[in-house]
Amino acid sequence: MSMVPDVMRAAVLGEPGQVRIRQLPVPEPGPEDVLVRVRRASLCGTDLKIRNRAFFKDGGPQADTFVPGHEYAGVVVAAGSAVDEFRIGDRVVAEAHRGCMRCANCLRGAYTDCLNYGVRARGHRTQGMTVNGGFADYALNHVATLHHLPAGLSFDAGVVLTTAGTVMHAFDVLADLLAGARVAVLGPGPIGLLAVQVAKQLGAELVALAGTRESRLKLGKAYGADLVLNVHQCDAVSSVRAASAGHGVDIVLECSGAGSAVDDALRMVRRGGRVVLVGFFDQPVTSDLNHAVMNGITIHTVRGEGAGSVARALSLAGQGRIDTDSLVTHHFSLDAVSEAFDTYAERRGDALKVMLDISDR
Amino acid sequence: MSMVPDVMRAAVLGEPGQVRIRQLPVPEPGPEDVLVRVRRASLCGTDLKIRNRAFFKDGGPQADTFVPGHEYAGVVVAAGSAVDEFRIGDRVVAEAHRGCMRCANCLRGAYTDCLNYGVRARGHRTQGMTVNGGFADYALNHVATLHHLPAGLSFDAGVVLTTAGTVMHAFDVLADLLAGARVAVLGPGPIGLLAVQVAKQLGAELVALAGTRESRLKLGKAYGADLVLNVHQCDAVSSVRAASAGHGVDIVLECSGAGSAVDDALRMVRRGGRVVLVGFFDQPVTSDLNHAVMNGITIHTVRGEGAGSVARALSLAGQGRIDTDSLVTHHFSLDAVSEAFDTYAERRGDALKVMLDISDR
Amino acid sequence: MSMVPDVMRAAVLGEPGQVRIRQLPVPEPGPEDVLVRVRRASLCGTDLKIRNRAFFKDGGPQADTFVPGHEYAGVVVAAGSAVDEFRIGDRVVAEAHRGCMRCANCLRGAYTDCLNYGVRARGHRTQGMTVNGGFADYALNHVATLHHLPAGLSFDAGVVLTTAGTVMHAFDVLADLLAGARVAVLGPGPIGLLAVQVAKQLGAELVALAGTRESRLKLGKAYGADLVLNVHQCDAVSSVRAASAGHGVDIVLECSGAGSAVDDALRMVRRGGRVVLVGFFDQPVTSDLNHAVMNGITIHTVRGEGAGSVARALSLAGQGRIDTDSLVTHHFSLDAVSEAFDTYAERRGDALKVMLDISDR
Amino acid sequence: MSMVPDVMRAAVLGEPGQVRIRQLPVPEPGPEDVLVRVRRASLCGTDLKIRNRAFFKDGGPQADTFVPGHEYAGVVVAAGSAVDEFRIGDRVVAEAHRGCMRCANCLRGAYTDCLNYGVRARGHRTQGMTVNGGFADYALNHVATLHHLPAGLSFDAGVVLTTAGTVMHAFDVLADLLAGARVAVLGPGPIGLLAVQVAKQLGAELVALAGTRESRLKLGKAYGADLVLNVHQCDAVSSVRAASAGHGVDIVLECSGAGSAVDDALRMVRRGGRVVLVGFFDQPVTSDLNHAVMNGITIHTVRGEGAGSVARALSLAGQGRIDTDSLVTHHFSLDAVSEAFDTYAERRGDALKVMLDISDR
Repeated sequence: MSMVPDVMRAAVLGEPGQVRIRQLPVPEPGPEDVLVRVRRASLCGTDLKIRNRAFFKDGGPQADTFVPGHEYAGVVVAAGSAVDEFRIGDRVVAEAHRGCMRCANCLRGAYTDCLNYGVRARGHRTQGMTVNGGFADYALNHVATLHHLPAGLSFDAGVVLTTAGTVMHAFDVLADLLAGARVAVLGPGPIGLLAVQVAKQLGAELVALAGTRESRLKLGKAYGADLVLNVHQCDAVSSVRAASAGHGVDIVLECSGAGSAVDDALRMVRRGGRVVLVGFFDQPVTSDLNHAVMNGITIHTVRGEGAGSVARALSLAGQGRIDTDSLVTHHFSLDAVSEAFDTYAERRGDALKVMLDISDR
Repeated sequence: MSMVPDVMRAAVLGEPGQVRIRQLPVPEPGPEDVLVRVRRASLCGTDLKIRNRAFFKDGGPQADTFVPGHEYAGVVVAAGSAVDEFRIGDRVVAEAHRGCMRCANCLRGAYTDCLNYGVRARGHRTQGMTVNGGFADYALNHVATLHHLPAGLSFDAGVVLTTAGTVMHAFDVLADLLAGARVAVLGPGPIGLLAVQVAKQLGAELVALAGTRESRLKLGKAYGADLVLNVHQCDAVSSVRAASAGHGVDIVLECSGAGSAVDDALRMVRRGGRVVLVGFFDQPVTSDLNHAVMNGITIHTVRGEGAGSVARALSLAGQGRIDTDSLVTHHFSLDAVSEAFDTYAERRGDALKVMLDISDR
Repeated sequence: MSMVPDVMRAAVLGEPGQVRIRQLPVPEPGPEDVLVRVRRASLCGTDLKIRNRAFFKDGGPQADTFVPGHEYAGVVVAAGSAVDEFRIGDRVVAEAHRGCMRCANCLRGAYTDCLNYGVRARGHRTQGMTVNGGFADYALNHVATLHHLPAGLSFDAGVVLTTAGTVMHAFDVLADLLAGARVAVLGPGPIGLLAVQVAKQLGAELVALAGTRESRLKLGKAYGADLVLNVHQCDAVSSVRAASAGHGVDIVLECSGAGSAVDDALRMVRRGGRVVLVGFFDQPVTSDLNHAVMNGITIHTVRGEGAGSVARALSLAGQGRIDTDSLVTHHFSLDAVSEAFDTYAERRGDALKVMLDISDR
Repeated sequence: MSMVPDVMRAAVLGEPGQVRIRQLPVPEPGPEDVLVRVRRASLCGTDLKIRNRAFFKDGGPQADTFVPGHEYAGVVVAAGSAVDEFRIGDRVVAEAHRGCMRCANCLRGAYTDCLNYGVRARGHRTQGMTVNGGFADYALNHVATLHHLPAGLSFDAGVVLTTAGTVMHAFDVLADLLAGARVAVLGPGPIGLLAVQVAKQLGAELVALAGTRESRLKLGKAYGADLVLNVHQCDAVSSVRAASAGHGVDIVLECSGAGSAVDDALRMVRRGGRVVLVGFFDQPVTSDLNHAVMNGITIHTVRGEGAGSVARALSLAGQGRIDTDSLVTHHFSLDAVSEAFDTYAERRGDALKVMLDISDR
């Protein structure tokens, strides 16, 4: 580790609502860990709740100690003694979750639903949420949370593809091919726009995208959506049903986080269809669950990526089949992290993904 | 068909809210049909909505033409030319749904979610809902909706076991063994009480039953529930979590139809667990769906039995492993059908299953 | 049906090993049937066993009565009273299997595994195998066996896509996305070459194709195979393992029908991986099944298309993502059906798909 | 660890074919490990291959260093710093496999199919196969491989229930309830006899058991098998089909390891049915795989327990629903381990499970 310094710049939580730069020691890898020189990192809605500490039930960590950031990519600079999957210099993408790998859920493959969530002593780690994350010069990752960044993909792309891992997981919980499926996507944020691309690439017959912002719907159209619906201007439910033989679509991905979208989803999906809730809701949701019962509709949920889904997303992108460039609307240096948060929180300039350019070497 | 008369007694819908006895022609079986001499039939919550016509979007059928009743058992008295699965004299149990068997859902096995629901011309039939049912001396069934009543089981038992088919379907959509599982059942009505029995018989480690009526909870205890919880007297969520290592149970069956039960279910189930909605809700439901998203909880639904589930229930009961006797609280003759409806609707005498004794031969 | 004649040309089985043209009555549609003016039909390996009667356990039908052919496409010319999914003039593709839709398998969606296989009285029909098929001017199909041919696709394409339905079913029994998967395909016949295309289109990271004929391997390469292996010239197992990190691929599709391929498949697949047997074997197969047991390998099988898989294939092709042109190597008129069989049986001119051009109107 | 000595008795591999007692240091637990005072351990077929070293591809470990034994139960005497699931004095049952928990298979829940099988440096351990096992006074286990022995169950029972974990996994890979299923079990060894019990307890409608030894078949009958078949005296395939409506059973568990049993299994199972291979085969197996293809039969395999299956077995036994007493035919002291191996290898006294009584405190 001769080239790795002892201290590094890190964006840390300050008082609630604040994030600022401090010097922290560079972490040292344990036997199964990898130290990553972070090149790029991006902000996600959860980071806003971390900054304002709504994310933490107990108020959260002491000021100036905690580094957020769970979407990042970089280069391997050191590795623990038990690691041989990666070499120094490898370009890597990090995923957020490492389960305890000893609870009943982890043993059955559901490590993002680890029963020891947040219990570091038992091995659970969620980057930038329960352990330090990637808004820093260096980040420490368990080897199982890293993936090779395919040749030809930029670090920016790698970062955005962690979000595509969530999309891929939303589809893989359905345990079915997408070929020939009819899909509606609610909410044209980064997740929804990636979902449009993934669904079309994987053979969906019809992809409908519903939202409110014309610029984003336009991007969805460019990404292959067969039908884009501005919910302020049309009855999205009727339009989707009309486009799917009156029966409704096979799958709805709810990516908006708007409570009213749940009823839309239930009405857009066919009898026996599936709704996947991907967006986070700020409030309790009122919906006609009886309609779900009467029609045999299943409601799946994903809170992020799952086993193998980030690798799937990287594979598809490595085949040149996912665009991420148009999703990155803003770049900031790490030192400007506070401005980056504000830009994202206030959606300045119609911000989609806001990128921190942490290092170029 | 020499022994079968031309006309029969039938309970028919009258004006909204009324049910009465009329003479109707005995139906004639088509090539794939079986004519059943109905022995016993029971009332279900849906029958109440049929009587008051809330079930029908268009007001429903003309008075004196429609026979409700989808839970019944009897004896085969005639069969169509293409039927050889049954012989005259066979004791049979009917299930409600026959799909069109040509839509995408039926072709994939989801016939209770038939895309041609209610379209008789395309072959769809739901007994007592979209075609005439079993509250009559004779009922006509497609051969695929009949099951042999195992030796040793009474017609009363057979009728109640149609409801057990719903329970069995609620478990089989989970695509897993129940052995060793922790299960909570919300609502100790007939469905919930059958669910307790089925879960214990199929090897559940823990079965908790929550409700409000002591008499029913007591019956649940007798049926093997490890934990019975009167939600008026304790914090059921805490109790269930405490009984399941703090993590919550693997599976919750919501059988109460109470909107507030959904939040209870979400809080009782472990991360990555499954909730099955079986009860029908009268109102939109407000619940913390974000909790579901954050914890990877899946919400399944069933509106009744599914492929094979009635046969499974009959098999388990034929093994002597499901009690139905204690669930049948009232008996009425067919001529007293109106009183039977009232008794059930008003839960007179703590009515659980109300049985119509239609014939003894 | 004014435009439809009373008699038609049909290729019929003669003595064992013979197929010849006879005049037969044009069949009349029952209530759920559709009469198709056949435009194109193609030969499949099963047709050879039908011609030489090895397909039939009891010797098969009387000479001059039976019309083979289960891969065909055409135009709707008449429909039964219960049919409204199709109109006269619609371009359609036929799939082979119609289940009885009343046995336990059909009710659960496995209609190609119908327990009443071959029992016409109970509603089962397999076109060209248990009922008359498509090597004739007109063919009769149950409505559920027809699919709309997407605009832009030729009848030739439609016919070949019935085989793609088998491929799609081979993948959909795995109940997983293909994105990021590593796949080996054994046998570059029509099924294998379609499998290469489908796997790549659905996002497979690696597709390896193994076979013996250079011309076909070359076509596989053109279709996107990442690795083509002539098993006469290399150790295909080693090559596949080397290309998949030493662990073996996730999925092997055995499409060759060569008994020795099963051991290759088991050695090519990773621990916990899946092998799908699609090819028919002429002989008992000797293989190291203990290797499968020790490594948790599952062996799936498909005998043809399954619920929804032909529609999936048509959808993907309708998106312009499956080539069929290069797979059709020969065209014959219906009158030359015997020569068409010989050409296919003897693989004259490296025959892949041999097409009967039955009508152009 | 004051009560734990520094050295212990251990059965170790000597020259090929030999097992003998030596003194070895008591192992020290790492942070996630638990030290178990072994009470009882039993022999399995794999132990014989370990003794004669056929199990090892490279000849196996140096003499006097390796402790076999993967079926055992005992008492916790020490635990690593990260362990709080168990306390000193807890009665525990060990399962064999601990995956690396970082390969693609482990991350998806298939830890018994770990891609790093045998690679200790990456965390993989299989007790008594790739690391020292339980034929010793003390054994070291990763915390995730231990399960609480339910109150009321003996250590002998606990040991045998590790085998029941394999049975439970053989059923849980089918992803379905067993209620109402028809099941055939081939081979009435310990696995087969446990399978009979589990299948009946979980609601199977029919359980047929086929084998050659009358004493074992008799035990199967006592365990609830509906049909026991001596394959030397009857045509087991015909009998099974006759007992299942001519269609064959839904599920066959092949537990005999006899190559000829595979064809029996394929002929006993219905179209679309599932065969699970549990027995290990000594030789390549010749079977009519074309019959599998033509009938849509899936062949699953398990090499031992899987995620959660030992816990399921313990739960069912803790409910008093699995007998193990009759399966334990012999007891030996640890010092007589060589005789125990011989007794088991030669099936002296019709040996089923041969138990080592290692300690009573």
